[in-house]
Amino acid sequence: MVSSTVAPDIDQQAVAQVWEQVRRRQPLVQCLTNIVAAPFTANVLLAAGAAPAMVDNPHEAGGFATLADAVLINMGTPYDDTTAAMHAAAAGAASAGTPWVLDPIGAGGLPWRTATAHELLVHRPSVIRGNASEVLGLAGGSGARGADSVDSAEDAVSVAGDLAQRHTTVVAVSGVVDQVSDGTHLVRVTNGHEWMTRVTGVGCALGALISACTAVAPSPLHGAVTATAALTVAAEDAAAATRGPGTFAAALLDELSALEPPHLAERVVLTWAP
Amino acid sequence: MVSSTVAPDIDQQAVAQVWEQVRRRQPLVQCLTNIVAAPFTANVLLAAGAAPAMVDNPHEAGGFATLADAVLINMGTPYDDTTAAMHAAAAGAASAGTPWVLDPIGAGGLPWRTATAHELLVHRPSVIRGNASEVLGLAGGSGARGADSVDSAEDAVSVAGDLAQRHTTVVAVSGVVDQVSDGTHLVRVTNGHEWMTRVTGVGCALGALISACTAVAPSPLHGAVTATAALTVAAEDAAAATRGPGTFAAALLDELSALEPPHLAERVVLTWAP
Amino acid sequence: MVSSTVAPDIDQQAVAQVWEQVRRRQPLVQCLTNIVAAPFTANVLLAAGAAPAMVDNPHEAGGFATLADAVLINMGTPYDDTTAAMHAAAAGAASAGTPWVLDPIGAGGLPWRTATAHELLVHRPSVIRGNASEVLGLAGGSGARGADSVDSAEDAVSVAGDLAQRHTTVVAVSGVVDQVSDGTHLVRVTNGHEWMTRVTGVGCALGALISACTAVAPSPLHGAVTATAALTVAAEDAAAATRGPGTFAAALLDELSALEPPHLAERVVLTWAP
Repeated sequence: MVSSTVAPDIDQQAVAQVWEQVRRRQPLVQCLTNIVAAPFTANVLLAAGAAPAMVDNPHEAGGFATLADAVLINMGTPYDDTTAAMHAAAAGAASAGTPWVLDPIGAGGLPWRTATAHELLVHRPSVIRGNASEVLGLAGGSGARGADSVDSAEDAVSVAGDLAQRHTTVVAVSGVVDQVSDGTHLVRVTNGHEWMTRVTGVGCALGALISACTAVAPSPLHGAVTATAALTVAAEDAAAATRGPGTFAAALLDELSALEPPHLAERVVLTWAP
Repeated sequence: MVSSTVAPDIDQQAVAQVWEQVRRRQPLVQCLTNIVAAPFTANVLLAAGAAPAMVDNPHEAGGFATLADAVLINMGTPYDDTTAAMHAAAAGAASAGTPWVLDPIGAGGLPWRTATAHELLVHRPSVIRGNASEVLGLAGGSGARGADSVDSAEDAVSVAGDLAQRHTTVVAVSGVVDQVSDGTHLVRVTNGHEWMTRVTGVGCALGALISACTAVAPSPLHGAVTATAALTVAAEDAAAATRGPGTFAAALLDELSALEPPHLAERVVLTWAP
Repeated sequence: MVSSTVAPDIDQQAVAQVWEQVRRRQPLVQCLTNIVAAPFTANVLLAAGAAPAMVDNPHEAGGFATLADAVLINMGTPYDDTTAAMHAAAAGAASAGTPWVLDPIGAGGLPWRTATAHELLVHRPSVIRGNASEVLGLAGGSGARGADSVDSAEDAVSVAGDLAQRHTTVVAVSGVVDQVSDGTHLVRVTNGHEWMTRVTGVGCALGALISACTAVAPSPLHGAVTATAALTVAAEDAAAATRGPGTFAAALLDELSALEPPHLAERVVLTWAP
């Protein structure tokens, strides 16, 4: 059950403050991610002011996760060795109290990685980010067919609340409206642009940005909402200045880099579940 | 022997119709590709309206190939585990009748991967795409020195016809003029721009686009010609609006995304072997 | 000890001549690099006129290194199989006299890869490129925390000279001012722009460009200085025409592609250690 309790402390000013902290503290974000999204993910983190470190081998991932400010584990292209690294990083993060984000790309539709995702859940991620299909797939419902969601974010939202409660985590469901639940509160961010779905790795980069924001935020819910707000507001500005997904992707990095906390506070549209 | 038989059903309108179908049916294209071209490849598929899914591990690749609408196997950076995934994906595609494309990057010059490519041929790809060196190398002639062709597409065309006949497939040879043969018919596409060779992954992305088009086309020959036409026409438009390979790459995605079937029909220049 | 001997043969004209040779001879550069920087690295090499070949598996890397014009080994995301390929490539390059560049990303802070880097040093790289933290880390000092330098290039310069002498190599330390030492001579390049640190893979691409230039230069010192000069001058031009790191990255490729030797000679600012 998703509660309708309003989360009054997550407003435009709170989002701007978390964003300000990312700029100021430049969190070191360890990324274990896929070969498709890795470059764009690193560039999004750099544009935000964070410091990416792609440490994703089994020899180093666990130890580094105890030192990093946050960890992203994205299952887009898992192999045996990087999957071993994911287990080590999740365990390392859990042992050190490092916040970490799980992005279970393709969960549900692909049994092997779905099993891996369930194993990783034992280490209790701070945030789970996915599209509707992946959230449903992780929760045991219908699964994803690749990285693109075939279920609507609305369908996934009650499942997200349940999943958040069951695992004491925050679940961020990407879609036309992004929805973030901690099992008690539900926050919706209605900014964004459809070209975000026409550039590979935007969702994956959002997972990394959630890691960066969670590293400096008062709660994972604040982190997930701030990252979503920043990326979707920057996307609106980028789309207004470009004519297609190729130039949009470059402009998105420009806008994210130029995004000042007051502008973010002014532009983000947040709503709470009724 | 390359026959001179004209393929009268592959004309501008047929190309436009296949392109229209890609937009409408949004085929799911499983890509097993290299670490260099993966992001651009996914972005080209998204710009075309297709749905990329980079499922390239041995645990999942075979099963997913039975569900996908098409499969791309690109040998740009093969490792032991991804090579095992390629074998599984080719077998899965063959068993399910899923069309699949082989892009034997570096074939000929590099013995290990050339042997792998020959093993994959057993599963009969719908289309083989390569530059002249790679097509010659796969057929047993002189080989490629990296990803750039040192032989001309003209030199490779008779070999391509033979290769197509021997393996009951279609061979697409990339070059200044792109040439596509099914062993009986030879179609030339004379669109394009030299900056296509100055951006990494353009040829690899063409292989993926051939997969997407073949998924919805009346024949692999139609698929390979349509993909080549769409990418080369978009490249001309992109080059006209930019000043170098960096901005060209972004504009190419914009143009591909904006490319409407009637514009493609109007712009593509097809010729048949005399 | 870094000597203050002036290296009078490395002046603006010498840099322009090496750059001219890269354009003319189009060296084949084998890259073993990381999943984040691979696409941008290949695009930088193509923009420079070189021919990238990402041959990074253990079956092929050693043999290819005997045929390539230069080799880059970048340790950004090492795995067991690619690390085996690095050893093979370094040995192959050494046996054939192929110039090769070591980019020890993360050295110092991460013990496993630091040990690997030390093992690779046995094969005597022509050039070692890193930021200050990595150079200090490789030399046994404080280490890197990810890919971003936390030590200044000035701090690293005496260590770089010692490292160059000890291993009979050239050490290029990236920073606000880039510094290149062969253990006797120290050359500083003061061009550049801060956005170079806001785009992932720019430093990694510099390592690849050093490989390309060293393949055609009279000495590794000439190669490292020329590559640094070309990339930093192009970066200044690119930054002047763009408004953030996303569009800057694309423009950097445009500018590098358009960079003519006389313009490079006119713009590069070289100084020698007093």
